[in-house]
Amino acid sequence: MTSDFDDLVLALEQFKEERDWGQFHTPKNLALAICGEAGELASELQWVGPEELSDNTVDRAMEEAADVLLYLISFSRSVNRDLLAAAFAKLEKNGRNYPVDKSRGTSAKYNQL
Amino acid sequence: MTSDFDDLVLALEQFKEERDWGQFHTPKNLALAICGEAGELASELQWVGPEELSDNTVDRAMEEAADVLLYLISFSRSVNRDLLAAAFAKLEKNGRNYPVDKSRGTSAKYNQL
Amino acid sequence: MTSDFDDLVLALEQFKEERDWGQFHTPKNLALAICGEAGELASELQWVGPEELSDNTVDRAMEEAADVLLYLISFSRSVNRDLLAAAFAKLEKNGRNYPVDKSRGTSAKYNQL
Amino acid sequence: MTSDFDDLVLALEQFKEERDWGQFHTPKNLALAICGEAGELASELQWVGPEELSDNTVDRAMEEAADVLLYLISFSRSVNRDLLAAAFAKLEKNGRNYPVDKSRGTSAKYNQL
Repeated sequence: MTSDFDDLVLALEQFKEERDWGQFHTPKNLALAICGEAGELASELQWVGPEELSDNTVDRAMEEAADVLLYLISFSRSVNRDLLAAAFAKLEKNGRNYPVDKSRGTSAKYNQL
Repeated sequence: MTSDFDDLVLALEQFKEERDWGQFHTPKNLALAICGEAGELASELQWVGPEELSDNTVDRAMEEAADVLLYLISFSRSVNRDLLAAAFAKLEKNGRNYPVDKSRGTSAKYNQL
Repeated sequence: MTSDFDDLVLALEQFKEERDWGQFHTPKNLALAICGEAGELASELQWVGPEELSDNTVDRAMEEAADVLLYLISFSRSVNRDLLAAAFAKLEKNGRNYPVDKSRGTSAKYNQL
Repeated sequence: MTSDFDDLVLALEQFKEERDWGQFHTPKNLALAICGEAGELASELQWVGPEELSDNTVDRAMEEAADVLLYLISFSRSVNRDLLAAAFAKLEKNGRNYPVDKSRGTSAKYNQL
């Protein structure tokens, strides 16, 4: 049985194959695309105060967040890695770098705890 | 039964609560964090030719990709939206914007097809 | 007589030539570098409240801003364009897109004025 | 006598004052704007091979580069710093971090030389 995330990965793969877009999906091109979509997400929020976040703004921001995710999946595919596994591994590493007792309530970087 | 992606979302939520980091996780701060990690991903690849992508470089790039994903999840949470649902919706929209017959084999934007 | 900006452009060019780094400075690589440094600038500010901007944080942020500028100059060089001329031209275009009477005191985009 | 860069800084300052946009120009908002424009620059190049860089693409990319520069100037202003001085200082620091004899012809980071 595939999970919902696997379904997304498969749907995206099919989307790309139908359009023969694999030729454009080098790691470097996809890194540019990730930065491009992350930048669009930033643009949606850049002048907006926290109390002014309308549903429309959130809708647009989430479309950009979705684009970032889709390109992250394509990037992982382009280097033959598993994005979800990488995220679990990174979260575990973060847990070692940021022990609860030292990092609670502070935004300091781990090398300054 | 939760899926693997749900598990990641829950693990990240717990990670954040244990450290009382919710106070830092405004949409704007998280947008900056997403751009920061996307930028680190870009930095890993910036001088590397396609044939020179070593396992070490890919390891480091995937750590940054993982960070981007973790912050995307936190961002979605901060605006009370579902990242995976947004990605499925965006992929469907992309399918309408990029019909197979017009977009096959070209990287042109949908408004130039 | 060269201006201070011309001096910077020349100093950067000499820096690059002495190190034979021109081979790495393709437009695409430099775009990745610009995003990388812009992301580092974002990282310096991501968790910092406006009232907490210490001199140290500003020092570090300005180092990243400087890196972005240096890569912008290298990017312009890589496509044989003049960055300062482009900035004057863009500011003039912005003036046309954002007439004072319509854009005063609002952060709306020009296509929504 | 002001230099051409000073002229740009002054013209941008006047542009902003006429529109009363200083209220939006916090360091954090401007960091988001810098990432946004850097991302647009990345987007212009993301699928383009080096031999396919048309004049139109370069025109659009330089508009984005110009936007990044304009926001870098506004950012520096928002933290009361001098962008050009910061760039000269960073270039000097880079010279210390990357001695010619060690860094010639390699893209390795200074801590790996």
